Amino acid sequence: MDGDLQDLRRKLGEVSDIHNAIALLQWDQETCMPPKGGEARSWQLATLSALEHRLFTAESLGNLLRELHARASALEAADATLVEVALYDYNRATKLPEDFVHTFAQEQSRALAVWVDAHRTSDFALFRPNLERLLALARQKAEYLGYAESPYDALLGDYERGMTTAEVKRLFAGLAAEQSRLVERIVAAGQPGLAWLAGDWDEAAQWAFSLRVLEDMGYDFEAGRQDPSIHPFSIYFDTCDVRVTTRATKEALFSCLMSSIHEGGHALYMQGHAEGDRRTPLCDAPSLGMHESQSRMWENEIGRSLPFWRHYLPIMRGFFPGRLDTVAPEDVYAAVNLAKPSLIRVEADECTYNLHIIIRFELEVALIEGDLDVGDIPGAWNAKVREYLGLDVPDDAHGCLQDIHWAHGAFGYFPTYALGNLYAAQVFNAMLEQIPDLWGNVERGYFGPLLSWLRANVHVHGRRKLARELLHDITGAELSPEPYLAYLNHKFGALYGLGT
Amino acid sequence: MDGDLQDLRRKLGEVSDIHNAIALLQWDQETCMPPKGGEARSWQLATLSALEHRLFTAESLGNLLRELHARASALEAADATLVEVALYDYNRATKLPEDFVHTFAQEQSRALAVWVDAHRTSDFALFRPNLERLLALARQKAEYLGYAESPYDALLGDYERGMTTAEVKRLFAGLAAEQSRLVERIVAAGQPGLAWLAGDWDEAAQWAFSLRVLEDMGYDFEAGRQDPSIHPFSIYFDTCDVRVTTRATKEALFSCLMSSIHEGGHALYMQGHAEGDRRTPLCDAPSLGMHESQSRMWENEIGRSLPFWRHYLPIMRGFFPGRLDTVAPEDVYAAVNLAKPSLIRVEADECTYNLHIIIRFELEVALIEGDLDVGDIPGAWNAKVREYLGLDVPDDAHGCLQDIHWAHGAFGYFPTYALGNLYAAQVFNAMLEQIPDLWGNVERGYFGPLLSWLRANVHVHGRRKLARELLHDITGAELSPEPYLAYLNHKFGALYGLGT
Repeated sequence: MDGDLQDLRRKLGEVSDIHNAIALLQWDQETCMPPKGGEARSWQLATLSALEHRLFTAESLGNLLRELHARASALEAADATLVEVALYDYNRATKLPEDFVHTFAQEQSRALAVWVDAHRTSDFALFRPNLERLLALARQKAEYLGYAESPYDALLGDYERGMTTAEVKRLFAGLAAEQSRLVERIVAAGQPGLAWLAGDWDEAAQWAFSLRVLEDMGYDFEAGRQDPSIHPFSIYFDTCDVRVTTRATKEALFSCLMSSIHEGGHALYMQGHAEGDRRTPLCDAPSLGMHESQSRMWENEIGRSLPFWRHYLPIMRGFFPGRLDTVAPEDVYAAVNLAKPSLIRVEADECTYNLHIIIRFELEVALIEGDLDVGDIPGAWNAKVREYLGLDVPDDAHGCLQDIHWAHGAFGYFPTYALGNLYAAQVFNAMLEQIPDLWGNVERGYFGPLLSWLRANVHVHGRRKLARELLHDITGAELSPEPYLAYLNHKFGALYGLGT
Repeated sequence: MDGDLQDLRRKLGEVSDIHNAIALLQWDQETCMPPKGGEARSWQLATLSALEHRLFTAESLGNLLRELHARASALEAADATLVEVALYDYNRATKLPEDFVHTFAQEQSRALAVWVDAHRTSDFALFRPNLERLLALARQKAEYLGYAESPYDALLGDYERGMTTAEVKRLFAGLAAEQSRLVERIVAAGQPGLAWLAGDWDEAAQWAFSLRVLEDMGYDFEAGRQDPSIHPFSIYFDTCDVRVTTRATKEALFSCLMSSIHEGGHALYMQGHAEGDRRTPLCDAPSLGMHESQSRMWENEIGRSLPFWRHYLPIMRGFFPGRLDTVAPEDVYAAVNLAKPSLIRVEADECTYNLHIIIRFELEVALIEGDLDVGDIPGAWNAKVREYLGLDVPDDAHGCLQDIHWAHGAFGYFPTYALGNLYAAQVFNAMLEQIPDLWGNVERGYFGPLLSWLRANVHVHGRRKLARELLHDITGAELSPEPYLAYLNHKFGALYGLGT
């Protein structure tokens, strides 16, 4: 191999190793760490993060990347892509001055602590000064990074490379009215009876059932594991070590399972990255939206489908003896697709979820573009919840203080959740066309053909294509709200007897 | 604070953070990591270890240490000790050229893989070339480090700072004949009947009982946890995060508990280091022998005592309903103190354990001083087992291939296990003198006064005193074989009715 390329892979490998070690420290913090271990863990994370940043932004790595990039046309295509992606990351990382990164990190950790209190006591005024400082820093960050039209474009680039604010606006405009209308019709139709769901459901049985489904999906337990944590997540240490977490609560029969399937979708993606891309920045999705498409597709398109439950209800009965004998697959299908407007995003169903995101996106753009003051957030938030969801917000804990993202200074993250739904619908439609008898396979609990298709069409490409390119290669189309709306209207129209 | 000292603490803090992150990666490898995760873990460990070494051996840190050391008399005593200990480590780390460290690490990992096969197939000839290379490297290491009398002195310094080969020889000479004689008398006396121990013992109950005892000992579960692993160990990430592992097997009623108590002894030590010494090299024992004294004292002097079982047998009955009703504390006392010569060190009892160590020590010294060739190890080993334990070695897997230490190139480590027994006896005697009614407290399962005494007299000092100094401060005496021999003769003389 080219000596420079070898040198590049060695340097990027070291950065990856530190990055993945940091991920393990974070995983342990959420799953295993004893309560008093937090202080030392924060020291360890700070030191390793600083080291990762120092190594990745080293002048010598920059020179190497620029040299290789200058002669990219002479490189093999696979190597040229590695250089291009690494240089993109390098440029973003070095555009931010070190003292700015430091200030941002300090402000984040202060804001986080204040947000916890403000959220608990529903006291927006308490959080407001922190949020004002974080917003100012985020706007400053956009200036450092540069942008063509909106400073929000620059922030989006951290999560959804290649996507613009204008494009998100266009996509969301297509969703908002249509999804609101669907929700209104569902509310008018009334809810199905779910008396059988009442009562407690054994948590160990929920856990065991979730493991069974993960195994069936093709999640490799020799290269991963599932642990309990307060907030479910999935995490990558290497293509051969990708872990998921979930939680079981006795009142919620499907919450553990659905989180497992969701995180399992992310994990299958990460277990499917190309062998040769390990220890490089290519081992990731091209965007958070594309990553989210994989979790949502498994959770919603598959895990909340009737064929899925035709297969799994009989199996689930074995995990809850005597409790589900008179329940039909159609009953479970109705239960896991219960739709109604609610105040809390993370509890929202498929019909309302994007509306929660659109509210946040519109406020974020206004904040970043200077059209909204932090002090006006609660009023603006509540007005939008009224507009899109038809609900009154009783307090800020159930309103603008509910999410942790702004306390992290993470403006530009929210839209990727909704984009994930759109990518999922289009990718799933392509899969439906290309896999013979897909629904028959799901009804037999046989996911092999689905996973093989996803491996070849999505997982293995990592960051070698932008999300837009990947979607185009798979579907021949651009991202659009229509396929997702068609999916929603078809599914919930039938479930709630809405006619056409 | 002095600006240089502040700078020193910051630099040492970063090194500690990396060191502790490495420890977490190792802990995870033994407790949680999925089978396929090993390759990436070895990359992560290699990168972080190299970074730790690079940061710790930086010229700027050396200059800072030398400057501070030059004006140590003007520093506060506590700071001067920090400088002295860090400089000792720095000098040892920088005496080894980087390419030597690299070669050693490579040879270790190769030898380890070969040893696994050689051990499995009992094929010493297979391992011999690797061991020859590791021995040559260990001898080279001794030359780099320098020594006064024996090259073995230099190697001991990694594990037992301040101890010489001559001193270990003197101590072991006092033990060897006396322990061999005791073993002969025990063999002649015959074994107690232990029919009640036969059968399977519920592993979950063993586990729960071990947690109960750890809790009673004062192990802080808010700053630690116990997990299963193939080989029990304890590990430090911070004074507030010290974890232990053990294993339960249904055939061995006491193995899980005794490992928990042993590792718990180490863990109490680590949870007891001084708050102000966190993130410095002072948060450790002055030597492996002193560390081992704490695990062995809890395990043997306390956990294998009659008062301990007078308290815990009734409690243990609750964990194994109906199984222990006719068993008396004296029966358990006899069972946990069963003594008989055996071939495998890790299964050896208190009477024979040091003999296993003496065999290894004598061979190691001969190898390092050039008086024994690697090819002659099996014969020499078997002759010594015959001499000290009265047993014939059937094959090398049960002889010179049984331990992993040499495959790590770790010559000089073994003696610390036996030194731990000697330190333990002397420290325990001091505690017996200074704590009113120590045995009464043990018989009430009340370990508070013991832990407080150990905190103040042992734990809190970390590496601020050498093991010799610490022992002298506690006991007013030098290390000696007599207290341990007196303990053995007293305990086993009574158990086996040997008279005086």
